[in-house]
Amino acid sequence: MAIRVALFGTKFMGKAHSQAYRNVNKFFPDAPQIEMAVIVGRNPEETESARSAFGWQEASTDWKAVMARKDIDLVDIATPGHLHCAMALEAAKQGKHIICEKPLANTTTEAGQMLDAVKAAGVKNFLMHNYRRVPAVSLAKRFIEDGRLGKIFHFRARYLQDWAMSEDLPRLWRFDKEASGSGALGDLGAHILDLGRYLCGEIRDVSAITETFIKERPALDGSGSQPVTVDDAFAACIRFEQGAIGTLEATRFAAGRKNQNTFEINGSKGSVVFDLEDLNRLQYFSVDDDRDAQGFRTIICCDDVHPYGGHWWPDGHIIGYEHSFTHSVYDFVMSLGSSTDVKPDFEDGVRNQQVLDAIEKAAASRTWVGVG
Amino acid sequence: MAIRVALFGTKFMGKAHSQAYRNVNKFFPDAPQIEMAVIVGRNPEETESARSAFGWQEASTDWKAVMARKDIDLVDIATPGHLHCAMALEAAKQGKHIICEKPLANTTTEAGQMLDAVKAAGVKNFLMHNYRRVPAVSLAKRFIEDGRLGKIFHFRARYLQDWAMSEDLPRLWRFDKEASGSGALGDLGAHILDLGRYLCGEIRDVSAITETFIKERPALDGSGSQPVTVDDAFAACIRFEQGAIGTLEATRFAAGRKNQNTFEINGSKGSVVFDLEDLNRLQYFSVDDDRDAQGFRTIICCDDVHPYGGHWWPDGHIIGYEHSFTHSVYDFVMSLGSSTDVKPDFEDGVRNQQVLDAIEKAAASRTWVGVG
Amino acid sequence: MAIRVALFGTKFMGKAHSQAYRNVNKFFPDAPQIEMAVIVGRNPEETESARSAFGWQEASTDWKAVMARKDIDLVDIATPGHLHCAMALEAAKQGKHIICEKPLANTTTEAGQMLDAVKAAGVKNFLMHNYRRVPAVSLAKRFIEDGRLGKIFHFRARYLQDWAMSEDLPRLWRFDKEASGSGALGDLGAHILDLGRYLCGEIRDVSAITETFIKERPALDGSGSQPVTVDDAFAACIRFEQGAIGTLEATRFAAGRKNQNTFEINGSKGSVVFDLEDLNRLQYFSVDDDRDAQGFRTIICCDDVHPYGGHWWPDGHIIGYEHSFTHSVYDFVMSLGSSTDVKPDFEDGVRNQQVLDAIEKAAASRTWVGVG
Amino acid sequence: MAIRVALFGTKFMGKAHSQAYRNVNKFFPDAPQIEMAVIVGRNPEETESARSAFGWQEASTDWKAVMARKDIDLVDIATPGHLHCAMALEAAKQGKHIICEKPLANTTTEAGQMLDAVKAAGVKNFLMHNYRRVPAVSLAKRFIEDGRLGKIFHFRARYLQDWAMSEDLPRLWRFDKEASGSGALGDLGAHILDLGRYLCGEIRDVSAITETFIKERPALDGSGSQPVTVDDAFAACIRFEQGAIGTLEATRFAAGRKNQNTFEINGSKGSVVFDLEDLNRLQYFSVDDDRDAQGFRTIICCDDVHPYGGHWWPDGHIIGYEHSFTHSVYDFVMSLGSSTDVKPDFEDGVRNQQVLDAIEKAAASRTWVGVG
Repeated sequence: MAIRVALFGTKFMGKAHSQAYRNVNKFFPDAPQIEMAVIVGRNPEETESARSAFGWQEASTDWKAVMARKDIDLVDIATPGHLHCAMALEAAKQGKHIICEKPLANTTTEAGQMLDAVKAAGVKNFLMHNYRRVPAVSLAKRFIEDGRLGKIFHFRARYLQDWAMSEDLPRLWRFDKEASGSGALGDLGAHILDLGRYLCGEIRDVSAITETFIKERPALDGSGSQPVTVDDAFAACIRFEQGAIGTLEATRFAAGRKNQNTFEINGSKGSVVFDLEDLNRLQYFSVDDDRDAQGFRTIICCDDVHPYGGHWWPDGHIIGYEHSFTHSVYDFVMSLGSSTDVKPDFEDGVRNQQVLDAIEKAAASRTWVGVG
Repeated sequence: MAIRVALFGTKFMGKAHSQAYRNVNKFFPDAPQIEMAVIVGRNPEETESARSAFGWQEASTDWKAVMARKDIDLVDIATPGHLHCAMALEAAKQGKHIICEKPLANTTTEAGQMLDAVKAAGVKNFLMHNYRRVPAVSLAKRFIEDGRLGKIFHFRARYLQDWAMSEDLPRLWRFDKEASGSGALGDLGAHILDLGRYLCGEIRDVSAITETFIKERPALDGSGSQPVTVDDAFAACIRFEQGAIGTLEATRFAAGRKNQNTFEINGSKGSVVFDLEDLNRLQYFSVDDDRDAQGFRTIICCDDVHPYGGHWWPDGHIIGYEHSFTHSVYDFVMSLGSSTDVKPDFEDGVRNQQVLDAIEKAAASRTWVGVG
Repeated sequence: MAIRVALFGTKFMGKAHSQAYRNVNKFFPDAPQIEMAVIVGRNPEETESARSAFGWQEASTDWKAVMARKDIDLVDIATPGHLHCAMALEAAKQGKHIICEKPLANTTTEAGQMLDAVKAAGVKNFLMHNYRRVPAVSLAKRFIEDGRLGKIFHFRARYLQDWAMSEDLPRLWRFDKEASGSGALGDLGAHILDLGRYLCGEIRDVSAITETFIKERPALDGSGSQPVTVDDAFAACIRFEQGAIGTLEATRFAAGRKNQNTFEINGSKGSVVFDLEDLNRLQYFSVDDDRDAQGFRTIICCDDVHPYGGHWWPDGHIIGYEHSFTHSVYDFVMSLGSSTDVKPDFEDGVRNQQVLDAIEKAAASRTWVGVG
Repeated sequence: MAIRVALFGTKFMGKAHSQAYRNVNKFFPDAPQIEMAVIVGRNPEETESARSAFGWQEASTDWKAVMARKDIDLVDIATPGHLHCAMALEAAKQGKHIICEKPLANTTTEAGQMLDAVKAAGVKNFLMHNYRRVPAVSLAKRFIEDGRLGKIFHFRARYLQDWAMSEDLPRLWRFDKEASGSGALGDLGAHILDLGRYLCGEIRDVSAITETFIKERPALDGSGSQPVTVDDAFAACIRFEQGAIGTLEATRFAAGRKNQNTFEINGSKGSVVFDLEDLNRLQYFSVDDDRDAQGFRTIICCDDVHPYGGHWWPDGHIIGYEHSFTHSVYDFVMSLGSSTDVKPDFEDGVRNQQVLDAIEKAAASRTWVGVG
């Protein structure tokens, strides 16, 4: 009855997903038993080291062989984006349920192939946009579904970091369009547009600007400088299908912002504000409060009444970044063997990629561009 | 040697400007003596009432006659925007120095005529964008001029209010394009773009969206409903001449935001954040701080070392919205009789109007539009 | 029908009270007309300068003569504390209504004489503890009176400043017990205990500690060093008559705190938090909110529904430190000619002094001491 | 070479400590290998359930037998306080290294016996005051040791919760002095006084008040009501050996405060503020900042330069309550086999208990009481 998992990827996301698999049975007793069967990487030593550090039973460097193993139920793809498609197609072919780290793929074409494959194979599929399952974000969703925000007018989101500001920083793969698809747009923008779609519905059309502030960087091999071929920052105006308007913005050049993923939603009945750097809190304003007592409330979303509440620690004891991965794995494994599907899935991956495409096109054409 | 002032306008801005004239000699001892000579309105009773309430020596309903008075040195135009042009032309003709409430005019054409007139007459002129002289904003300017923020990459600003959310709210003049020029764009957006220009320089081009959420409202006379002909909200992406990119957004539909005029600037050496609802504070991040002690500082801008510091109350005693008008009047009257000009002036009014025009065109054409 | 005022005092408090008299008729149209008749000081030049700067009709250095003038209705005593008693006794004798700056006196004995005098004379009397009339504080009072906080369990307050931290700071009069009565205790502690009494009722008994961190300071005349004879800081535990317990603390040695006068009240139905450095806001928690939406609200107390709302600027436009003086003067002058008395009055002054006495005794005796 | 651990206790603290043992080798690669050998409880089913849920190899209900096992290196006592002494004495007798959950014991006598036992046995010992190892708290300690705060004048701390406010809440063991020693004082106050000692040194003497707001509660067995024999809240004034003064306060009756453990320290060079409900942040003020740029900084303590930085997630990704246990276990197991001892240890446990005793005596006697 246990679910045996194979994880592909040994870096940051491999570490984060592993922590989720280790924790889910410890904190969510109703979850099916997880067996951390095998971790797959390219380099034998690094993979063995990750196996040991992250707690997997076996290590392998033969990804196709692992995909074919009969004892694996769930495949988790946490490799770089350009490898997602081939792996997911193989996993689907082998009838495995799939968790795929975001972005689903580096191109809409690949993303579409992946969606087709999981549909054809009839396997459960999940896109790891873990921020949907930060309790404060899930609470915002609950408020919206309950009608506590009313009709939504505005969504404004930004994802700000500052790690790329130094001109001495070499031309890492993240500055190379071939390797990374895009810059702040795909890396950070994908998160906030996914949250926008989760909370406010599909995006109809977009206008945008992208910018590369440092146009050349030192080559990694010390051989002079190389051009940066991705954006350092982008900003977009958007319109949702349901009529709301909004802004999206991401950058790697916001001094002092290490990981500020923040949004504000304004509706006819109230507003909410979230910030990933303060992820245990949701700010909430209700027009129904007594007039002389109206104000934004700071809800510490760590009580048993909150999403995923009661599983970790007593009320008021805050959790961290990593817990959202456990929540994601929990919800997905609970859906296995049931008729319920959980979101976001590969279809969301395709739609997210369509929005990214539209933003790139809008910035290049200097016009509004429809999504999809 | 005293400066005798005539104020045109008896409503909110008349009240605010009057408080500035009453306070400037009380708190800024080096300012020339102000004499609050005459207040001018349309309705005799209301004007007399304002005269008494606001502290003016005389009341008048004959604006042209007052413009012609030899004993008036300074004309302050605080009437609705569509009246600014005629009054300013007359004031310039009569050789008066002029303070004009924002927006300079409802159209770029009128604004240009006004600029031409003051240039031709050689009179000092000032545009009352009072938020430039909130101490925290002036401090941000000082930081930028000192190089404490380095090269600027981002300016993001929004001005959020919520007073128009009820469908029962009648079709006030503010919902009528004829009377008001535009909606949130001109009313609120003008403030934040002026701050953007003040702090980051001229805006090169823009992309935008505007929206009217409630398209009809009850007529004021009870005769059914009438169309709303202005925007309830807008959002824009912008690019500055010096290379920074940014976003502007304003709305009357942000539940819980009464008067949130906020901006964030990110530069290569640091960042600043301001919020008018918390106007005594400037947040500041410096990349030069010790690495383990870096963080956004909350500077309470009420000490003697801060702009306009030492004039009001001891360190740490906060001031309010209205004080920025006193600072504005102070700086302008100090420039009279000197060779120094102070900003913003009518030229800024023209440029601000050009940006508003560009935003409207960009929203209508769904393309990027150059400014001016 | 106008109320003619004589102000005694030309320094910081003279400036603050003057601003209140200038503003009250401008912003509170139902207030009786105020005439700023005469300002009284010791030094002729300084007094004339203050007259001009603050807007009084006449200047005088003969305080007794002014007290005797028939044309004066209201006496405002804003001199140092050791002069309050003689002036108030004279004012009462002359049948004047009296506003007295806090503290009422430097000793309980003097305070009691003053109370007796105003009672005997039947004149209206008011103690200028202006912080009671900061709108957010008045709103806290409203919440308590409405039962929105329920039964109160806790009051914790502190008043932190940092101006005395330098050892180079000379021995000002504030460091001399003869001149100032006490240090942080009387200067700052008096404010927070008055707020405690206003909001939670009378204090039954206290325990305390006082400390003088810098025990000698350079003499003002350069003649070596002199002992500091007052406290730099104090802390106290208190019990209220109604059963709540609390803490009071004040210091001049809290680096970074310029003027942080803050309190938190916890009751069976909710809590409130206030901070003078952010005086337009009241934080409020209600146990009656939906369980998953509970949190401290930040109420910006600048709407027409809030105390003193609608008199200054539109909703969301914040006010400053000085406005609380206008509110105080407004409420007091509205009571003249009516049968209503407003608080705080001289009786509060006596009770406040009794609490200060008890704290000093408790610190000296190292035991709990009853109040009064 | 692995360290084999036996954990005594299966409830909240058993869960928290187990998470630490599971995580330490995953995130701190230089730590010695931990083997989670055996968990010990009283009820066989519950213990087996905890074994499975928390990840231990074996379960046992025979605590003495486990203490005697040769294969156990480290004993972790996470049982209720009245059981600590007997277990620690046995563990010391058997030569085991010991981690003991706070409080070390319910009485100073027992605590002293435990300290004597570990000294006599020469075993390493550690008191689990995990909050010392929240990165922001450790950073505050670093600042103090570096002299970045200068000479310390003030420490003010409070620990506020609200779970006991309902009169319908039955008389749990926490309301019974026999079982729990004291109420908010020992449960919450112990944490803040330990932080005070950690950061500012030993406490010399105290004055205090305790209060029980709800004096009777429904018996757990439904047989009417029973008296509450512990404090619901306490407040204390304290003086440190090095001259600083401070306040301590804890309560279970602060509506809206779920787990607010907060302190502020003011020194001659700067100040820091911490709040456990926002545990990734430290506020810091430095008197050495440029005068016009001084303000409290909000340091997000999640970068590689911060204490325990670089072990969890990339910069700016926040951690939760539980991580402080992993840091604690890490530091302690790194000390095994080395000559270094880590704090807090059983000696701290004795000293903490002496402060609690002094607070109780001070409240009862209504006088200041010396510590120890």
